[in-house]
Amino acid sequence: MREKIPLARGMDVQLAACGNEALSLRAPLAPNANDKGCAFGGSLVSLMTLNGWALVELPLRERGIDCDIFVGTSTVRYLAPLWEDFRSEAALAAGSDWVDFFATLEARGKAAIEIACSVPKDDGTGPAATLHARFVAKRRS
Amino acid sequence: MREKIPLARGMDVQLAACGNEALSLRAPLAPNANDKGCAFGGSLVSLMTLNGWALVELPLRERGIDCDIFVGTSTVRYLAPLWEDFRSEAALAAGSDWVDFFATLEARGKAAIEIACSVPKDDGTGPAATLHARFVAKRRS
Repeated sequence: MREKIPLARGMDVQLAACGNEALSLRAPLAPNANDKGCAFGGSLVSLMTLNGWALVELPLRERGIDCDIFVGTSTVRYLAPLWEDFRSEAALAAGSDWVDFFATLEARGKAAIEIACSVPKDDGTGPAATLHARFVAKRRS
Repeated sequence: MREKIPLARGMDVQLAACGNEALSLRAPLAPNANDKGCAFGGSLVSLMTLNGWALVELPLRERGIDCDIFVGTSTVRYLAPLWEDFRSEAALAAGSDWVDFFATLEARGKAAIEIACSVPKDDGTGPAATLHARFVAKRRS
């Protein structure tokens, strides 16, 4: 991600944690601040978008399936300002299912999946921002 | 914007055009590319968010009203990949009104306004991405 996406490098995006069903990225505040000194909305949505993208990329790579993954429609909510380094979390959205996704990809060469991402508040009380996004994977020919 | 927001500098955001009712920003592809070599979704949404923010900031500054402007809920649609330098455009969303916005800000010290942004396709046939966002301005005390 940092090699191929200059903005991920500029944001200094790092892997925070990686499990079977969830993935977490983090970024320092300094390169991601806005004019008010808190986290820039564009950085929050970029981190969550990268996190969602990585959550889809990972199981495809593990299965050796060569795909391009594009983000489709996203809804972003900015709920509270963030004044410290931050991290995002991504997981399957309610109603989404990897089994369906892989079956559709196998049958049609293309499949979509919904991912829910969030950035927790500095004090841990709920999210500071959320992103609900649809990602589309297409097999490379 | 480039002075205070490191990501705007990293993206090499430039002013493309500025009128009374609309504002346009542009960015080169190279620092905003993704792993596929087209424009990174995070860069597109960041450019449109900055563009919307600037459209609200500008008339406030012209009137000498000192406010912090925050982005609230946004809906983003990524419609086509972009393989060249790109620009965004921002204008008031349908149903939004500067007169109402300034009257509410004057009365309550806080007001919201909806902005519609888009990034045109390389060939000019419709948008490659759109963002509909709610911005909130709060008077600084």
